Amino acid sequence: MVKSNKIYMDYASGACSDPANPGAIHEFGVKAKKRLNEAREEIAGILGAHSDEIIFTSGATESNNLVILGVLKKYLQNFSHLPHIVTTNIEHASVLEVCKYLEKTKQAEITFVPVESNGIVSPEKIKKALKKNTILVSVMYANNEIGTIQPIREIAKEIRHFRKTKNSAEFSRVLGRGSARPLENSLNFSFPIFHTDATQAINYLPINVEKLGVDLLSFNGLKIYGPSGVGVLYEKRNTPISSIMFGGDQERGLRPGTENINGIIALAKALKITEQIKDKEVKRLTKLRDYFTKKLLKFNFVVNGSLENRLPNNINITIPKTPSDLLVIELSAKGIMASVKSACKSGDEKSSHVIQAIREAKTGKSLLDKEVDGSIRFSLGRQTTKADIDYTVKALSQILTKLKKWY
Amino acid sequence: MVKSNKIYMDYASGACSDPANPGAIHEFGVKAKKRLNEAREEIAGILGAHSDEIIFTSGATESNNLVILGVLKKYLQNFSHLPHIVTTNIEHASVLEVCKYLEKTKQAEITFVPVESNGIVSPEKIKKALKKNTILVSVMYANNEIGTIQPIREIAKEIRHFRKTKNSAEFSRVLGRGSARPLENSLNFSFPIFHTDATQAINYLPINVEKLGVDLLSFNGLKIYGPSGVGVLYEKRNTPISSIMFGGDQERGLRPGTENINGIIALAKALKITEQIKDKEVKRLTKLRDYFTKKLLKFNFVVNGSLENRLPNNINITIPKTPSDLLVIELSAKGIMASVKSACKSGDEKSSHVIQAIREAKTGKSLLDKEVDGSIRFSLGRQTTKADIDYTVKALSQILTKLKKWY
Repeated sequence: MVKSNKIYMDYASGACSDPANPGAIHEFGVKAKKRLNEAREEIAGILGAHSDEIIFTSGATESNNLVILGVLKKYLQNFSHLPHIVTTNIEHASVLEVCKYLEKTKQAEITFVPVESNGIVSPEKIKKALKKNTILVSVMYANNEIGTIQPIREIAKEIRHFRKTKNSAEFSRVLGRGSARPLENSLNFSFPIFHTDATQAINYLPINVEKLGVDLLSFNGLKIYGPSGVGVLYEKRNTPISSIMFGGDQERGLRPGTENINGIIALAKALKITEQIKDKEVKRLTKLRDYFTKKLLKFNFVVNGSLENRLPNNINITIPKTPSDLLVIELSAKGIMASVKSACKSGDEKSSHVIQAIREAKTGKSLLDKEVDGSIRFSLGRQTTKADIDYTVKALSQILTKLKKWY
Repeated sequence: MVKSNKIYMDYASGACSDPANPGAIHEFGVKAKKRLNEAREEIAGILGAHSDEIIFTSGATESNNLVILGVLKKYLQNFSHLPHIVTTNIEHASVLEVCKYLEKTKQAEITFVPVESNGIVSPEKIKKALKKNTILVSVMYANNEIGTIQPIREIAKEIRHFRKTKNSAEFSRVLGRGSARPLENSLNFSFPIFHTDATQAINYLPINVEKLGVDLLSFNGLKIYGPSGVGVLYEKRNTPISSIMFGGDQERGLRPGTENINGIIALAKALKITEQIKDKEVKRLTKLRDYFTKKLLKFNFVVNGSLENRLPNNINITIPKTPSDLLVIELSAKGIMASVKSACKSGDEKSSHVIQAIREAKTGKSLLDKEVDGSIRFSLGRQTTKADIDYTVKALSQILTKLKKWY
């Protein structure tokens, strides 16, 4: 017997009776379903979405995979013409690697729009990349390495304009017909779909999906002081997308498997807090970051990416001729946890594709891995103080003095 | 500053600094990686596997999807001949629905071997289903609805024998060559691969993968009193399988995305406890289940599935002419949480494919959904007592007396 004099005899659907499996029709299941829906509504409310537009996944990587593979799959169920996808050359691996795979296996034509030397993509260039067979545009909201903020609203505007003005009849003719009538007509939906990976942005930037003008938006619990192993995909009603896994009917059939209910509840709670303190944290961290940046500039470091259109918590610098993985390890020895995307010295390790992209934009030529210097990312957060920054700058100075002997 | 005088400046890789992102090379990341590996080793130890054979996923549904789609993908990267998959007609939806999809879209030929009327599949029938192009056999260890235990060791033996005796040269000739040399030779691996979904079995049955003779084995945290949202795939070294998602290099490239480290640690702990109390729980629950079954048989209920080769915690009965969803709701009102797979009365709901399978095996003919009676599953667990069972039997009797007026 479990607490409250109830008898739980549904261990096979989930050994935990509180919360129980939300798919069960008994009292415990109904209660779990209710809590799941409350979490869903809370998240939808914050995003300015309907609760049936919120799909829970296992993380941002799965959300991004679901977007690209799921939109492609839905398309290929209805059309036989080769689809085209537009993205940028600084996306997270969970977007970039899927696109590269699709290109390599000739399942889709991909345009990787290069960002400018400040790490920001031009909406004009996205616009120019759109073609009759473009089914999806995927541009991250803010970059994970250099924190640059992409002009999502402007890109959305270009896409809306393209949708309206393109010749739909011709589009259908070019694409041909699959077994069903043309998908666009049947779903009253016009390609391309617009997706943004908002994983890094969600802590600090506005996330009203309608104002952003996106059809799909991904994020996770891990980056918002919530649980790992839980992700969200906002999916605007009627967006043509298929599930990429099979099993139960959970998440409106888009994502099978018993819901990670504890994780989902924790994510909703984390998002709520994030929203509540967003303005305050943006102000506080912007101040700290600018203070940090100013100190670092004195050292003649190169700051990677725009200083203006940038997440308030991100600093990414390159210290020429110094291996950044060594720097991170030296910093760690002094109790400072920073992040690296190391330059390739050994031949095995690859340089950061983001740093490579902005260097190439600057120099106007393709660079080899070994020609791209490493970078260090300092990403600040709720517990970061001014004293932390002072200590870090001091430690960095000591380390560089020491390393100067060798580099 | 976070506790212990360390400065965490890696919020962008994970807002939580303890545990941090195991991919980070700083001290916190290294510590997280260590804990992740300890969990992996613990699980491997219990399964009698190597730690590099343990892949973490988001649940058993993902593990099962990864198995079927991942093996197929790897195969199709190397061969062009249509592959064949063998499974049973009572698998969980996360196996069955993938197979149906592959059959429907002509990506694979599928044999759904029907179980006998006792809910158990004959190893002889699996053997007969094997063909030259069979790449995968997937048979669940124990059924989720009726708890019947499948003869995994015997099936593994048949598969080993088939691998040895089939004419490999002819196999290669039939399959043709892809871009690479034949996969079997290059990997020193002989098809078919043998997979078992052990999700329901893991609490009560032996799970040494070598003794079982399986190449792939799935389970999750949810059914072993652990976390939801975490799954495991045991993958024997050299088993040809591809990832189905893209992104990071986590889990040896088979499953991208930051590891759900808290969930993984909790799963390892849960599995350890499960193993420690397994023998004791098996004895205790077998006694309780037999006591329950005896009481129920007095009512002239039909018990679904073998009474001998059955999980110690499972009872599944059919009460003819009584809607089982109604029964479950009435039981819930009396504080008893049981599970239903309702018979189709309304036309919209489908009957249980498991109950349908064993009825068809008994009658020797295909049945329509509406011809299959509903069933109730009582699944016992760690908190179940004899008093619970007495109360449940009494409640069931009262409910049936009441319902007799209508049914």
